[in-house]
Amino acid sequence: MVGTVAIDAVKTPFGKRDRVFGGSASYFSYAASFFVPVALIAVVGRDFPEEYRMILTERPIDLSHLEEADGKTFFWRGEYGSDLNSAQTLETQLNVLTRFDPKLKFTQSPPYLFLANVDPILQMRVLDQLERPRLKFVACDTMNYWIRTKRQELQKVLTRVDGLVVNDGEARELTQEANLMKAARRIHEMGPGCVIIKKGEHGSLLFYENQFCVLPAYPLEAVFDPTGAGDSFAGAVMGYLAQTGDLSFDNMKRAVARGTVTASFTVEDFGLENLRRLSGAEINERLEILKKIGTF
Amino acid sequence: MVGTVAIDAVKTPFGKRDRVFGGSASYFSYAASFFVPVALIAVVGRDFPEEYRMILTERPIDLSHLEEADGKTFFWRGEYGSDLNSAQTLETQLNVLTRFDPKLKFTQSPPYLFLANVDPILQMRVLDQLERPRLKFVACDTMNYWIRTKRQELQKVLTRVDGLVVNDGEARELTQEANLMKAARRIHEMGPGCVIIKKGEHGSLLFYENQFCVLPAYPLEAVFDPTGAGDSFAGAVMGYLAQTGDLSFDNMKRAVARGTVTASFTVEDFGLENLRRLSGAEINERLEILKKIGTF
Repeated sequence: MVGTVAIDAVKTPFGKRDRVFGGSASYFSYAASFFVPVALIAVVGRDFPEEYRMILTERPIDLSHLEEADGKTFFWRGEYGSDLNSAQTLETQLNVLTRFDPKLKFTQSPPYLFLANVDPILQMRVLDQLERPRLKFVACDTMNYWIRTKRQELQKVLTRVDGLVVNDGEARELTQEANLMKAARRIHEMGPGCVIIKKGEHGSLLFYENQFCVLPAYPLEAVFDPTGAGDSFAGAVMGYLAQTGDLSFDNMKRAVARGTVTASFTVEDFGLENLRRLSGAEINERLEILKKIGTF
Repeated sequence: MVGTVAIDAVKTPFGKRDRVFGGSASYFSYAASFFVPVALIAVVGRDFPEEYRMILTERPIDLSHLEEADGKTFFWRGEYGSDLNSAQTLETQLNVLTRFDPKLKFTQSPPYLFLANVDPILQMRVLDQLERPRLKFVACDTMNYWIRTKRQELQKVLTRVDGLVVNDGEARELTQEANLMKAARRIHEMGPGCVIIKKGEHGSLLFYENQFCVLPAYPLEAVFDPTGAGDSFAGAVMGYLAQTGDLSFDNMKRAVARGTVTASFTVEDFGLENLRRLSGAEINERLEILKKIGTF
């Protein structure tokens, strides 16, 4: 996977942290590693704390593509209101990210690839270095900023991936369709056979060729910090697909369920704190509950 | 059930009608009648079209408590934006509703009662005329207007009902809790053992004693007019409970599924038009789909 490793400053109605280990690559890799070993392609600055690097080494996360460059690590400051549904970005310092141009050193292409929310040009550069048919399943994420500023480049990426994982607002902006069923169909026409739309507390939708599935979010009474929910969701989805090697619709549903549950643990504390305490048994417990609450 | 019979004027992104047959009692009764005979307690004015009354007689709906009073029928004018999630009310004429004071003529209390969204004082007056234990299950609806202006009266009603069916915004305003799991628990503490929270396109939550269930909305690519969705949902839920006479949690889930599917038909045309064309077989078809899309 390629994404960002970041230092975040987060404020929620329940607390405030001036420095939290964050970034899409950190959350994604940590979540995916519950299912399969993962290689992280990202860049950090000279200020990147050794302590954060150690957190990643707790899990089977290959750091040989984690570059260290002159300058400071990507920094994001955000704040959540009482509904916790969306962050207000207060500050973004791209820092070392602006010159990031990864050179992949894999002896052969990995079978699964996730392009997290970064510049579509960077997504494309990574994709260009890997080869089908060895590469079996590629999915990507994006955000409103790229939809607005680099739509053409993003559309090009979409013609080359098998899956898109976005939130409802992004799906609507990308397609100009308010109805999410229609939006998913439009995205499908842009390229990806698999479209996953995340709806925060309302769960997620999976569209795969002509089939679809709706899963609720894991019900929580206390969401502490939503940062990283989407990235750990995607990490568990991709991790489970890679672990099982099964790209059938039924297995995609099981993957989305794992994404749902893993994200539910992420949001119960700041940063990776709760994922660090997490066991596979706890994931399975919530999976059973999730299965039960959606059936009638 | 007690509620309103109305003449609506509705504008959606897909069309406009200056006169549509509407009101909570109309939608509720029509939907409930697919499962069980229903008696409608409501008032209309002298202008109420015979043609609308005939629509209700198409189904096993007892109109002996549908009063006709001097004055004009309750009128509502609303408009939906492109997201279709909430109506903007442009005009409300209460008309005959202001003096409505129903005198029930049942020889014995019916076993199921629904108090649709009307003044809590009116809800209480109806409830006062019926008797437990003959009355087995009473549920009610409300809206932000009553929560703001008649909270005390509403709280009194809540101590006397078994179920509350509200939308997410109402649940949040009633409890001052953003988290819907917490909101449901607070409502439960106010009285009702059964709390159903409707989330529009995101489906619904059912809380019953200490158990809960999350059901998605039936996925539609084309929502034409959301008016009446909540009332036909409640009608089908109560109708199914009355038909089966089974108040277990598992049966409540099945009832909510019927509500979900019935509402999905309502929103595919103006007013009662689509429900008038609806067959039990079509309800069952969508139930099967709803069951499938939520399982993994």
